[in-house]
Amino acid sequence: MRIHIVKIGGNLINKENLLHSSLKYFCKLRGYKILIHGGGRKADEISNKMGIQKNIVQGRRITDKETLDLVVMTYAGILNKNIVALLQYYKCNALGLCGADGNCVQSFIRKETNIDYGYVGDIDIKGENINAFLIKFLLRNHITPVFCSITHNGLGQLLNTNADTIASNIAISLANECKVELHFCFEKKGVLRDIKDNESYFHEINFHLFKKMKKNHIIKDGMIPKLENAFFALQNGVSKVSIGLPENLNNVNNKTILCL
Amino acid sequence: MRIHIVKIGGNLINKENLLHSSLKYFCKLRGYKILIHGGGRKADEISNKMGIQKNIVQGRRITDKETLDLVVMTYAGILNKNIVALLQYYKCNALGLCGADGNCVQSFIRKETNIDYGYVGDIDIKGENINAFLIKFLLRNHITPVFCSITHNGLGQLLNTNADTIASNIAISLANECKVELHFCFEKKGVLRDIKDNESYFHEINFHLFKKMKKNHIIKDGMIPKLENAFFALQNGVSKVSIGLPENLNNVNNKTILCL
Repeated sequence: MRIHIVKIGGNLINKENLLHSSLKYFCKLRGYKILIHGGGRKADEISNKMGIQKNIVQGRRITDKETLDLVVMTYAGILNKNIVALLQYYKCNALGLCGADGNCVQSFIRKETNIDYGYVGDIDIKGENINAFLIKFLLRNHITPVFCSITHNGLGQLLNTNADTIASNIAISLANECKVELHFCFEKKGVLRDIKDNESYFHEINFHLFKKMKKNHIIKDGMIPKLENAFFALQNGVSKVSIGLPENLNNVNNKTILCL
Repeated sequence: MRIHIVKIGGNLINKENLLHSSLKYFCKLRGYKILIHGGGRKADEISNKMGIQKNIVQGRRITDKETLDLVVMTYAGILNKNIVALLQYYKCNALGLCGADGNCVQSFIRKETNIDYGYVGDIDIKGENINAFLIKFLLRNHITPVFCSITHNGLGQLLNTNADTIASNIAISLANECKVELHFCFEKKGVLRDIKDNESYFHEINFHLFKKMKKNHIIKDGMIPKLENAFFALQNGVSKVSIGLPENLNNVNNKTILCL
């Protein structure tokens, strides 16, 4: 069983035309596939309307009760269901899920260190808290799971979880029995040497190079956790990880391939 | 295969303690079961915060684009996912669905008569647009589907649909092969003779009595479409339909039983 796992995020979610074309490219992937989507800026848009204050501590958003409701509404509600309806229109038999549905992705509230992140869920290492049985069961029955970045702790509490982390952990949980390819799609051709030059993408990054570039601040900000998730997947049995544009999903070139 | 289909609505959704106890009673039902929930007043609460104006024409809410987003966020997002997380906590393997998920409930935009209702979806008669195959497949695999009142038209458009209508149509679609019992639960003991007296519930209403009471305005307002949905289900193969409190789900008495 070969499975493509595609995570879409950033501007692909924010702009309607990019979302539609990303979903069309996703539909063209043959065989078993899973989609995971982030939230983009949609939650900000709705929170502005609702007058919910963003609570940022040391560059990170704190998920208080009000913010949790906001992200659940946005990610599991409006984004997930519109994506599913579009995929159905494109003849892909999609079924939207958050981590609570069928107990697919269980997490635990992030341990309080010096910052209390609120209702943020981390996933136990190596995909052990993923219901891989149900995911494979859906795939074998020609259903395409579409995950949003909401999980639960098994005690009735929904939690806000990083979509890249969910993607990596689902990929790892399936890698035991299946050949899994994980694709992180966004609006750039790959991991860029120069953020202003879309052509400056790396064709390949190995773990040694990643560590070196992280140390030298060539790779920074949000790209660090994304690459950490990517290498974590490779280190735990995922066959292939790539980062790039959705139109290159079916293309072996024109993107960044990660290797150990 | 015997299936209980339970619709919960009204104050059972609005008040947290009532929602929790309703879900506990639902969990106590043995065998195959399906939950369908309405939206209660949660959408009003959120629309007030967002400053979305209610658009009521001849007593009915019009679902414009903004209102559709609101109900999708509320019903498929915050309500559906919190209900699923609670059911998981109560050891019921729930999986939340809107009509677009797995193409479970397809509808069409309500035909414009003298009022344009906007993004409101009606369901084709007799459950033919229900994916009964997928619903039975989930049930047989010990998954409890939890439906919110959002459907789709198969062309990428989500639609706002009456939860009682969804419940009746799902019940009918399964009644061919299964013994289906449909329960409409709300905060009253049954269909009341005197709206102010909770003990004045009918133990039984047959179709003849319903028509007579409708004509004489003894039954009115929202109870009319609810009973019409109920009788429609009975006329199309559903074994049993009851209306009453969630604590009487497992009780043959203390509720209104409908019969032809």
